[in-house]
Amino acid sequence: MSDLQIRPASPTDIPAIVAMLADDPLGARRESPDDLSPYTVAFERLAADPNQHLVVAEREGRVIGTLQLTVIPGLSRRGATRSIIEAVRIHADERGSGLGTQLIEWAVDESRRQDCQLVQLTSDTSRTDTHRFYERLGFVASHVGFKLML
Amino acid sequence: MSDLQIRPASPTDIPAIVAMLADDPLGARRESPDDLSPYTVAFERLAADPNQHLVVAEREGRVIGTLQLTVIPGLSRRGATRSIIEAVRIHADERGSGLGTQLIEWAVDESRRQDCQLVQLTSDTSRTDTHRFYERLGFVASHVGFKLML
Repeated sequence: MSDLQIRPASPTDIPAIVAMLADDPLGARRESPDDLSPYTVAFERLAADPNQHLVVAEREGRVIGTLQLTVIPGLSRRGATRSIIEAVRIHADERGSGLGTQLIEWAVDESRRQDCQLVQLTSDTSRTDTHRFYERLGFVASHVGFKLML
Repeated sequence: MSDLQIRPASPTDIPAIVAMLADDPLGARRESPDDLSPYTVAFERLAADPNQHLVVAEREGRVIGTLQLTVIPGLSRRGATRSIIEAVRIHADERGSGLGTQLIEWAVDESRRQDCQLVQLTSDTSRTDTHRFYERLGFVASHVGFKLML
């Protein structure tokens, strides 16, 4: 357990990240792990944006977790900068190991380093176990999350 | 009604934007319209980030609405780019006029122009009228929104 490393994702991590995105009840319907080209294009956009932090958790050379942290400046709340956590995934072999907690704690610490005043995320209403997980970490379910597909 | 303009915010709009942020049941407790300095600093960060679009709605020289649109690239959903709408405010004199609809429609159209595949936002659970507004515009309340104050 001692050699866990959370580091910026590199292009060679794309297959492992996409495999984790797809290995999920919701992700299975919307990902295409057999065609990585759209992910490669998106990775280049992420890498070019200094407010995007796509990271992976690696242990013994294996990528076992990922998340994306976005830093968003704004005027509201006295000019508060906020961060948004998206696309949190833990490899199926590692669920329940505490890795999710370590990844979210990394994101919260990094948000503090970037002078954010709040961290926010949304979670599909069907993921009730995930909701309890975030509440244990101190997050408050204060909002309703709306989506519009284009 | 014909001369409504939705345009990028300029530094001279900061007082009007902050007044609208503060004139709100939740905003009243967390804004400081008498001290604009933190907003001015935040405005500079927003203006320097090409993925941030802080706009105002202006009619006959008066700023009567605002929102912030953020464009976020990502790997999930086959490399989908998403947009996030934050800090939507309508001047008290203009509520119920359809201006909110025009602002959100601007944000949705701009998201399409930027090749986003989805638009998302969160709304405090207490704002039930607002939830019905977003549902009328086609948004789906599919997620729970979590926040952690730092």
